[in-house]
Amino acid sequence: MTELGAVRAALKAQRIETPSWAYGNSGTRFKVFAQAGVPRTPYEKLDDAAQVHRFTGVAPSVALHIPWDKVEDYAGLAKYAEERGITLGTINANVFQDDDYKLGSVTNPDPAVRKKALQHLLECVDIMDATGSRDLKLWFSDGTNYPGQDDIHARQDRLAEALHTVYERLGDHQRMLLEYKLFEPSFYTMDVPDWGTAYAHCLELGEKAQVVVDTGHHAPGTNIEFIVALLLRAGKLGGFDFNSRFYADDDLMAGAADPFQLFRIMYEVVRGGGFTDDVAFMLDQCHNIEAKIPAIIRSVMNVQEATAKALLVDAEALAAAQHDGDVLAANAVLMDAYNTDVRPLLADVRQELGLTADPIAAYKGSGWAERIVAERVGGEQAGWGA
Amino acid sequence: MTELGAVRAALKAQRIETPSWAYGNSGTRFKVFAQAGVPRTPYEKLDDAAQVHRFTGVAPSVALHIPWDKVEDYAGLAKYAEERGITLGTINANVFQDDDYKLGSVTNPDPAVRKKALQHLLECVDIMDATGSRDLKLWFSDGTNYPGQDDIHARQDRLAEALHTVYERLGDHQRMLLEYKLFEPSFYTMDVPDWGTAYAHCLELGEKAQVVVDTGHHAPGTNIEFIVALLLRAGKLGGFDFNSRFYADDDLMAGAADPFQLFRIMYEVVRGGGFTDDVAFMLDQCHNIEAKIPAIIRSVMNVQEATAKALLVDAEALAAAQHDGDVLAANAVLMDAYNTDVRPLLADVRQELGLTADPIAAYKGSGWAERIVAERVGGEQAGWGA
Amino acid sequence: MTELGAVRAALKAQRIETPSWAYGNSGTRFKVFAQAGVPRTPYEKLDDAAQVHRFTGVAPSVALHIPWDKVEDYAGLAKYAEERGITLGTINANVFQDDDYKLGSVTNPDPAVRKKALQHLLECVDIMDATGSRDLKLWFSDGTNYPGQDDIHARQDRLAEALHTVYERLGDHQRMLLEYKLFEPSFYTMDVPDWGTAYAHCLELGEKAQVVVDTGHHAPGTNIEFIVALLLRAGKLGGFDFNSRFYADDDLMAGAADPFQLFRIMYEVVRGGGFTDDVAFMLDQCHNIEAKIPAIIRSVMNVQEATAKALLVDAEALAAAQHDGDVLAANAVLMDAYNTDVRPLLADVRQELGLTADPIAAYKGSGWAERIVAERVGGEQAGWGA
Amino acid sequence: MTELGAVRAALKAQRIETPSWAYGNSGTRFKVFAQAGVPRTPYEKLDDAAQVHRFTGVAPSVALHIPWDKVEDYAGLAKYAEERGITLGTINANVFQDDDYKLGSVTNPDPAVRKKALQHLLECVDIMDATGSRDLKLWFSDGTNYPGQDDIHARQDRLAEALHTVYERLGDHQRMLLEYKLFEPSFYTMDVPDWGTAYAHCLELGEKAQVVVDTGHHAPGTNIEFIVALLLRAGKLGGFDFNSRFYADDDLMAGAADPFQLFRIMYEVVRGGGFTDDVAFMLDQCHNIEAKIPAIIRSVMNVQEATAKALLVDAEALAAAQHDGDVLAANAVLMDAYNTDVRPLLADVRQELGLTADPIAAYKGSGWAERIVAERVGGEQAGWGA
Repeated sequence: MTELGAVRAALKAQRIETPSWAYGNSGTRFKVFAQAGVPRTPYEKLDDAAQVHRFTGVAPSVALHIPWDKVEDYAGLAKYAEERGITLGTINANVFQDDDYKLGSVTNPDPAVRKKALQHLLECVDIMDATGSRDLKLWFSDGTNYPGQDDIHARQDRLAEALHTVYERLGDHQRMLLEYKLFEPSFYTMDVPDWGTAYAHCLELGEKAQVVVDTGHHAPGTNIEFIVALLLRAGKLGGFDFNSRFYADDDLMAGAADPFQLFRIMYEVVRGGGFTDDVAFMLDQCHNIEAKIPAIIRSVMNVQEATAKALLVDAEALAAAQHDGDVLAANAVLMDAYNTDVRPLLADVRQELGLTADPIAAYKGSGWAERIVAERVGGEQAGWGA
Repeated sequence: MTELGAVRAALKAQRIETPSWAYGNSGTRFKVFAQAGVPRTPYEKLDDAAQVHRFTGVAPSVALHIPWDKVEDYAGLAKYAEERGITLGTINANVFQDDDYKLGSVTNPDPAVRKKALQHLLECVDIMDATGSRDLKLWFSDGTNYPGQDDIHARQDRLAEALHTVYERLGDHQRMLLEYKLFEPSFYTMDVPDWGTAYAHCLELGEKAQVVVDTGHHAPGTNIEFIVALLLRAGKLGGFDFNSRFYADDDLMAGAADPFQLFRIMYEVVRGGGFTDDVAFMLDQCHNIEAKIPAIIRSVMNVQEATAKALLVDAEALAAAQHDGDVLAANAVLMDAYNTDVRPLLADVRQELGLTADPIAAYKGSGWAERIVAERVGGEQAGWGA
Repeated sequence: MTELGAVRAALKAQRIETPSWAYGNSGTRFKVFAQAGVPRTPYEKLDDAAQVHRFTGVAPSVALHIPWDKVEDYAGLAKYAEERGITLGTINANVFQDDDYKLGSVTNPDPAVRKKALQHLLECVDIMDATGSRDLKLWFSDGTNYPGQDDIHARQDRLAEALHTVYERLGDHQRMLLEYKLFEPSFYTMDVPDWGTAYAHCLELGEKAQVVVDTGHHAPGTNIEFIVALLLRAGKLGGFDFNSRFYADDDLMAGAADPFQLFRIMYEVVRGGGFTDDVAFMLDQCHNIEAKIPAIIRSVMNVQEATAKALLVDAEALAAAQHDGDVLAANAVLMDAYNTDVRPLLADVRQELGLTADPIAAYKGSGWAERIVAERVGGEQAGWGA
Repeated sequence: MTELGAVRAALKAQRIETPSWAYGNSGTRFKVFAQAGVPRTPYEKLDDAAQVHRFTGVAPSVALHIPWDKVEDYAGLAKYAEERGITLGTINANVFQDDDYKLGSVTNPDPAVRKKALQHLLECVDIMDATGSRDLKLWFSDGTNYPGQDDIHARQDRLAEALHTVYERLGDHQRMLLEYKLFEPSFYTMDVPDWGTAYAHCLELGEKAQVVVDTGHHAPGTNIEFIVALLLRAGKLGGFDFNSRFYADDDLMAGAADPFQLFRIMYEVVRGGGFTDDVAFMLDQCHNIEAKIPAIIRSVMNVQEATAKALLVDAEALAAAQHDGDVLAANAVLMDAYNTDVRPLLADVRQELGLTADPIAAYKGSGWAERIVAERVGGEQAGWGA
């Protein structure tokens, strides 16, 4: 009973950040399918994000992407968010969409381009100062498409130099989250392709540099929860970018492609003591063909369900079976939690929070979808700007 | 000597079709980097393609992509090509860029969308009649992103129906080439994900339906040359879309990522008697960060080099070693050909064709690159229109 | 109520065949860890299999592997099984463990080896006549390790010839199930690497030749349930070999690595009308480090749970959402079934069958594990004999 | 001329260690095919290794595997080697073949098993003292097969503890090489699955702990040469285990599956200054179906050819093209070296070393193969003992 109380408390305390870009249009290199009612400004993205929080109760902050969310007055933007019951979260830098970045940003062979990219990163810290954001998330599309195209060593040196400069600029309570990705948009090398590379750089930089794990950024066969466990053990897990995928891409709803994997990841978070402020839980996904707001709500719910199951793992029984080397018993303890239907538990938790039990139904019933389609007419819909 | 003569003859007779879209701008979902001098019209694409043929001597035809290459007068376009020493080749249908196609084209649950897509495919056959093209290449982006999104059976039924209707419309000397692709832009299912699916449909349709192998469209670990051998054995290999990739995407220059694989593929073509008119050798790639025309020239050369090596395999010695079960000897015969530097041989072949030995240098010296940058000012550069 | 009744009925009618080799020792190329109590004879394997059926009620038949299960008197073996409430099932041929098969069995370049392999396959049909088995399962380790080692075409010709001869030998009510596998033990080519190859051969052979899908035999990124749907649509799905894996190997308990995938596969079986006698549901796995009998019980239960969830999918609601192109709603219908905890339902079904609700606990309480450890002393434990 | 002289000098100075186990029998979990003439003792393995060195001139040392190469008198074994013109090299520990290691060795939940494994590792250092070996190579099969089976954190703690103890035991001039592997024989987690994990442990241990890159141990899509470049940059590349593979397994001859990849790896070694004593070049492969000694000779030659091509890269031209951001030119510089037929150069180098130009032919002509078949009759052939 008390234990279930702790599970409920943990579920109420959980916070999942949603990304501003998930509210805008997106697609593949083949086609961006526009959707009616999509926000045209950062303010409208916040309006939508507030709906997600309104019905889930656990998504109170929104990650920004600069320059997609560039505004004149960030303090004003923060106030706009606050008025809607949410806050501005992680600042995501973007150094991949200028023509100058064709051969890289901070690792570009051309020092002028590197300087420009670095200025953008520093500007992002300025924005953090204005928004009160704690985390700067850095993902670099930098890399090469062809063997020989550029020098791997030299690019690492350039990367290290840029990271160092940005790190020095961080305020006392600010952090740098370094993301890795196996491939795309660079196809032969990515300058930060795996957790090892991100870890090595963060280790050299210091405590404020932490690795962020994007669940869609690994080679097939990679055991992601193992990486999570290792980073937590090393004190170097800064956060998650949740999404899912089957073969490649990384934009399906979190938990949609492999809910058991998401559960295993969450179990390692629980096991490693990762449910603290030090680990940021963020979505990083886009909704190319499905309705955006309910897809984000569903993703938040999927993360919640995986969390609930992870919290339900009988730690004592598991430790005992592991200690005894009883493979089947240990696996059964884990599966027992996974096979539990936690939707009633989460419905209860929501009602205890003063929310309705079914966020999707509540959103549908709210009329918001119809309202934005009707009101957001004209102007240019937000998107990646690619 | 006679044998080397046959190799030279085969190399002179080889034909590699270049794709009109490779001359235009392209990129990833993150960014399309525009390049100066890029064509603005199908006519300018043909101008560029003529340069590729001028310096390689083996690329006399250009594949079109409808509607990217839509013109009023296809006979006029064919004449324009002819005046530049080239011809119009395969017609590539495009049923993935209208907003209607968000949930599929010929497999869309909505019959109205299916009808529209089918009309486009039939229009492509009309265009083939006008251009004199033999082959209609069909690639479908159709599929689903989420489990449950649509019914796999029903989509196959719809696909079969559309293919049947198009097949019936083909003229006596026209063919339908059906392409398969593991993933992207659909992420959960693709309606034609593998050679088996394409083969099954083509078998049902009849002789004029043939499978096309895009070298970038397979799961990791797939043995592509095995598929080539099987399709040739079954009389169902209609052609190739050449390109290369490391993990995903499929737009690197043919032979750039794994030249040994390209050689093994070409060896199976030689072995299976595939150097006939019945197998179309096409490039299907885009050049996101490198200069386009020389990248296409390089790709053509890469295919030629792989072909030359494949032709040099000592078939008799190989058969003897295989017959004896001598694993190392058999492998050594193949590797002996692969390890040969065939560039001098190809230089000779080019000179016998009245070309310069080094197509890249010749192109650079021609001034064409500078000329198109200077002349193609204003207007809208060609691209995917995504 | 009636619908849930149909689900219960289907769950009671389901039959899952267990493989005799799963009861014996097994391992990797690095080490076979022996377990106490493991059977020493085919008869003892049947004793163990009877325990699995005793506690699950849905595993009444046992697949044999020849020569691992070679006995003098197959009718006697069948009678022995019958006395224990089970039957002999599919006959699995083994043409990979003689020194002669180093370069292949039915595709070996040496006709004498091919003849020997063919004789074994025909002998297996003789055994089927004696045991009353319906299905001959053919898996070939044949292939090559190095490019050039042998001729892909010629090997396909030899394969086709052998399959044809065996097919002709089949009795009226016997079938040939052809299995495919991406890799291992051959590393460059497998002669039947994918469903397309198996399908093409089966199509040529006729109705009695059917494809069997081993869930562990695909390249990463392959959508297995898509293949299942296609084969069912084509009337060519002969059965399943269930097991699971993370990256490679194929011996983890069915449903252990990706329970959502197993559910999706089962959903396609339900959707495609595959719960008939024409589709054989078999386990094909080994238990290298975990206790064997409870691992097999757990695997059977995992298949049952996936089946129950698949049966619970609201077909009408799904079809409606698919028809409407409502991506999220359609996915939600599927996920609703998947997220259901079906263990209570299966406990009920078992009790209705006169079994205890928890087969694992029942087996543990039965004393069988202790008994076989005590009694099976001396002799040589069964294993792969590699 | 001088540059080509430097290339020749480097090729003459290169040293490639061969593994004792490659001379013995090996196979897959399905079958070990015995070969006539295979060594029965460590001494006979050295006899065979001496032949490889005799004909290649660059393979003067042999890696030992304990306990497979356990002898009473290691100093005597070293002397035996010396008399045949070779030396004993790296000591490979083996903590995966005792029944005790079913759930792990140094990471086993049972402290008694951990202690036993640790004793073996320390014994290996004793052997190094006796043989004069510099390097202790540690590869752990440790891991788990099922989610929940054991605690990832705890296993890392146990691993760190064991490594620390062994590290402390190392002599001043001894090193520990830590190997990583994606999967197999553990299928869910490997305790050292990737370079990042090995790197993190080595960093913590100190300078004498170095990472070893086995070319067959990565997830698909992994850029191995990138890892090589990173480790060299960090001063943490201890050596290579060369072999190749297509999908999984890791026992094909080095350079057989992807010669271009081997070249790219060697290029990064050249680029990063890795041709020093600090980087050990070792083969780690087995020859399941091909003749063993010539397969090892071929592998040595493949590494030499990749090295020669890497040394021929025009570093100045490459740097210039990279500096200019000329993607095609930079790639062309690299490919120019790769496309060179270096076999004549290596034939020259061999002749300058007093060897025959063609090691394979020389070995065949030596009569050694016939002699060992005739003489090695009776006794038990060496193998993995699995």
